[in-house]
Amino acid sequence: MLHILFLFALVLAPASHAADFCVAKLKGAGGVSGYACRDPAMVTAADFVFKGIVTSGNTTNIINAAVTPVFVQQFPALNGLGLSTARLDLAPGGVIPLHTHPAANEILVVTSGVIKAGFITSSSNKVYIATVKKGEVMVFPQGLLHFQINGGGVPASAVVTFNSPEPGLQILDFALFANDFPTELVTGTTFLDPALVKKLKGVLGGTN
Amino acid sequence: MLHILFLFALVLAPASHAADFCVAKLKGAGGVSGYACRDPAMVTAADFVFKGIVTSGNTTNIINAAVTPVFVQQFPALNGLGLSTARLDLAPGGVIPLHTHPAANEILVVTSGVIKAGFITSSSNKVYIATVKKGEVMVFPQGLLHFQINGGGVPASAVVTFNSPEPGLQILDFALFANDFPTELVTGTTFLDPALVKKLKGVLGGTN
Amino acid sequence: MLHILFLFALVLAPASHAADFCVAKLKGAGGVSGYACRDPAMVTAADFVFKGIVTSGNTTNIINAAVTPVFVQQFPALNGLGLSTARLDLAPGGVIPLHTHPAANEILVVTSGVIKAGFITSSSNKVYIATVKKGEVMVFPQGLLHFQINGGGVPASAVVTFNSPEPGLQILDFALFANDFPTELVTGTTFLDPALVKKLKGVLGGTN
Amino acid sequence: MLHILFLFALVLAPASHAADFCVAKLKGAGGVSGYACRDPAMVTAADFVFKGIVTSGNTTNIINAAVTPVFVQQFPALNGLGLSTARLDLAPGGVIPLHTHPAANEILVVTSGVIKAGFITSSSNKVYIATVKKGEVMVFPQGLLHFQINGGGVPASAVVTFNSPEPGLQILDFALFANDFPTELVTGTTFLDPALVKKLKGVLGGTN
Amino acid sequence: MLHILFLFALVLAPASHAADFCVAKLKGAGGVSGYACRDPAMVTAADFVFKGIVTSGNTTNIINAAVTPVFVQQFPALNGLGLSTARLDLAPGGVIPLHTHPAANEILVVTSGVIKAGFITSSSNKVYIATVKKGEVMVFPQGLLHFQINGGGVPASAVVTFNSPEPGLQILDFALFANDFPTELVTGTTFLDPALVKKLKGVLGGTN
Amino acid sequence: MLHILFLFALVLAPASHAADFCVAKLKGAGGVSGYACRDPAMVTAADFVFKGIVTSGNTTNIINAAVTPVFVQQFPALNGLGLSTARLDLAPGGVIPLHTHPAANEILVVTSGVIKAGFITSSSNKVYIATVKKGEVMVFPQGLLHFQINGGGVPASAVVTFNSPEPGLQILDFALFANDFPTELVTGTTFLDPALVKKLKGVLGGTN
Repeated sequence: MLHILFLFALVLAPASHAADFCVAKLKGAGGVSGYACRDPAMVTAADFVFKGIVTSGNTTNIINAAVTPVFVQQFPALNGLGLSTARLDLAPGGVIPLHTHPAANEILVVTSGVIKAGFITSSSNKVYIATVKKGEVMVFPQGLLHFQINGGGVPASAVVTFNSPEPGLQILDFALFANDFPTELVTGTTFLDPALVKKLKGVLGGTN
Repeated sequence: MLHILFLFALVLAPASHAADFCVAKLKGAGGVSGYACRDPAMVTAADFVFKGIVTSGNTTNIINAAVTPVFVQQFPALNGLGLSTARLDLAPGGVIPLHTHPAANEILVVTSGVIKAGFITSSSNKVYIATVKKGEVMVFPQGLLHFQINGGGVPASAVVTFNSPEPGLQILDFALFANDFPTELVTGTTFLDPALVKKLKGVLGGTN
Repeated sequence: MLHILFLFALVLAPASHAADFCVAKLKGAGGVSGYACRDPAMVTAADFVFKGIVTSGNTTNIINAAVTPVFVQQFPALNGLGLSTARLDLAPGGVIPLHTHPAANEILVVTSGVIKAGFITSSSNKVYIATVKKGEVMVFPQGLLHFQINGGGVPASAVVTFNSPEPGLQILDFALFANDFPTELVTGTTFLDPALVKKLKGVLGGTN
Repeated sequence: MLHILFLFALVLAPASHAADFCVAKLKGAGGVSGYACRDPAMVTAADFVFKGIVTSGNTTNIINAAVTPVFVQQFPALNGLGLSTARLDLAPGGVIPLHTHPAANEILVVTSGVIKAGFITSSSNKVYIATVKKGEVMVFPQGLLHFQINGGGVPASAVVTFNSPEPGLQILDFALFANDFPTELVTGTTFLDPALVKKLKGVLGGTN
Repeated sequence: MLHILFLFALVLAPASHAADFCVAKLKGAGGVSGYACRDPAMVTAADFVFKGIVTSGNTTNIINAAVTPVFVQQFPALNGLGLSTARLDLAPGGVIPLHTHPAANEILVVTSGVIKAGFITSSSNKVYIATVKKGEVMVFPQGLLHFQINGGGVPASAVVTFNSPEPGLQILDFALFANDFPTELVTGTTFLDPALVKKLKGVLGGTN
Repeated sequence: MLHILFLFALVLAPASHAADFCVAKLKGAGGVSGYACRDPAMVTAADFVFKGIVTSGNTTNIINAAVTPVFVQQFPALNGLGLSTARLDLAPGGVIPLHTHPAANEILVVTSGVIKAGFITSSSNKVYIATVKKGEVMVFPQGLLHFQINGGGVPASAVVTFNSPEPGLQILDFALFANDFPTELVTGTTFLDPALVKKLKGVLGGTN
């Protein structure tokens, strides 16, 4: 009974051009909704696997922490999938400073240690802080200032996932102090002391 | 009173570049949200008409059925319109085997004969089966396994429409048996008998 | 080997609440994205089938035509599916007057006879007109003025589908003349003659 | 304590390719969701500022009015931002004739004078008319016919904003009379008098 | 010829339930995509007009500035329209401190005076600063820190519009200092001096 | 200079009702885009943390595996965030049988052991199979059949994340055999042997 089902496969073949995936051709600046697709015929299983966050990021720095992003620029298979991820590593005392993701919500799963994390709402400036242990999950709504710090005496790590291949990452200190944002404007729009602004600009390589 | 309204048309002309349509330039693999647009100045009325499903598909095959897709690859005017269509033809005894559309919901209108159709929910594995006569309408939610079979003794046909220009079409038997999916993995992930898997692979041109 | 797979079904059961469908509870005015869902447990296969466009609409009227909508209000299963449909019937000489769908693109399949149809772009006021025969397909982009007329000497009908459960339907003549839109404002914003406006208001039941 | 925070900036650098903006490269016909992005490194602050609607549009025309669009084609920074704007100027007696925006909702803020404005629903042909004074705000839902006229004896102006970089603008009179739409089809699909259609075609440069 | 077109209006009546608008019923916390709709039959033209930003906000405060939001909570007609607006008033020396809108892009039109404004990208911490004069337009991408200050010696005002009825507004100083965010965590996640944090908390009513 | 900034906070207060989050009120069947929001004032930090996947699911079953979903029904804070997650546990020899997620793409991070995983495209029935080790990442496009099996001799686990709070989970064997889908229709639409269908129905609790 089945011996000519094969013919049907041929009949249906014209239906078979649907865009199951769109692995990014990263060259060029892309467009509003992402990058052009690589030729599907040249895509292999290896393109769907990312091996770059197997080991801890280097936490030998002042914040004793590392963020290793896996956005579409690092992992082209994410193009069009509405997802990206990152690995957080926090040595004892480690801090991921206050930051936002302008274009995505975030879900965090602690994979080792304990992380204390929090976010601040825009509507009421209310601060939601929680201690999240290994295997526990926490969410951070889009665009809100939030932080993660090591909440135990041992190294901690987490996998975070975003509902965009390009969530963005705006770190408050870098936005204020690691550029040529004129000190007068920084103080004028934040009410911080000029001396402090100058000092932090010095530390972070900022000018003006 | 109207004699210089014409001048106003000129005044407004700069407003006139809105993207009313974006007929696909199919060459190249496209991007996340579809294909690049052809130059609107070169598009004619004929580009908005598709003539390829006027006659029945060839149902002289084991399933006594044919699916003729009208997706963006067949009908470039669909690019960006969030719509595509297909014609189903079912000779007596004809069957469109279990399949899914990964990227779209479906609405079916029977244009001749009687079709028995059904889908299975993911939340409860519940099967919804109905008999749909000429002129009647049925819907199939996105991504759920569903089927259509001839429900009368005479040829049946239907127009189905999707809310995506690239709905995709994954036919269960082809996904399992018409490729190099190793028999050991097919059986291991479906609990089907190896002998049956081998037999169906033989019929459908699969290997391994 | 399979005798305790059944246990696994139980293990997975908590995963099973996904929203496969959301048949509308039409009572109440709904919300931005549609209506509240009926209790899925009370939904049956019959809820996914619509039988109201099996026969021709009544074309014994001045336009010799009928439009029978199948929007979410007529077919609650469409809620959330991003699709709706309608049946067009055009007796010889029949006309579906100029109209727009404010919220959806449209795809038309002629099911009998011949239909002459066209739309006008916003960007260049260009008119795209085509003659569409039985089994042929035509598209009309969202929000653009378009029309369908009988293009042969025999009755014609078509199935049209929209990429929204609530595409809207604004018929130009009714918007201008079938309401209390003051004649002075109609003429002032269209440059039509007051006498004509008054006459058409009379025909269509308009006032003012 | 801060002296090696700088190192952290380097560590995070790979995360820094997020698409904060996508200023349009207007050359070419674009794609479904907009235009390709210009190289961000070449974009300057001036690209985010538009200076073309500082002064009133020329209202010395039959409608005593002007619409000056600021869509993505005029202001490439709007690409992907889901926003565009326009300036309306209405001399005494000025009229923006009935029109629709096929692809966007509209919010209007009166910046001088008084504007009488209205829209017509598709669902009930109901007309909502209001007088909007300097500083007041009015909204117009997507795809619905609407108008604005000078509502006082002095010049009026307004800023309107759309939730799309390409809202479209279909002016009813131009769609009907400023093209080669055959008179017979215009009358057949609108029930307007042929003589009037011919006259308005003459005024607006239409043919056929 | 037109005397029974009226009958056609009746025939089409069932098509007339499309959701042209969804004025918010603000009571209750709403849902993911906005608020429930008020009964359309009870909505009047006045519901589509907002009169609350006719006059300048009160700028007699330390920042010599005022922001008067017109979000869906203030103007229920915005529900589902993907738009909201606000009025900015900046007395000489006035400052809208650094802030973000987590959920929307922004377009600003200066309506009087001169405004100096800027935003900082997430991808490169680059600062884009521009001086925007009366009638000029500037855009600010979603979720990025930005500011507006009076750029002349005279009062300035602007209309800003967002592509969301609920854009959110997170003011940096309030998020850091106007709540019970523990000083230790503020300093730990920003590298600001504890003394400064305490001082600003005092000013802004913060605790801890 | 800062002593009356506090006043500004009060001035801005009316702007503060933006929807930062919408924790689901699960009672009722919800709507098209999710559930109604709980009163934000009653939401605490604990609502944003989920503790239910800290330990391995029970893998003492025939497939030696467990899937523990964290969808909006388990974790109401996910409502409207476009994200959900799940924990996979695979004892040695463990198998997550072929399944689809009708409504979401998936990203998987291996947290212990080795997982062999694969998916089948709809466009070409091509099978992409990869071995994913601890810390590595793999993606699975929406709606495509895929599987995960233990790829080493030791227990393996993974965190998977979806770009929807309700991704759905349709397990092929359950859809075919764990319900009242008539054997005749199962065989007719899959070409499987009736005897096998009956046997698997018996194992999985199916009837008919």
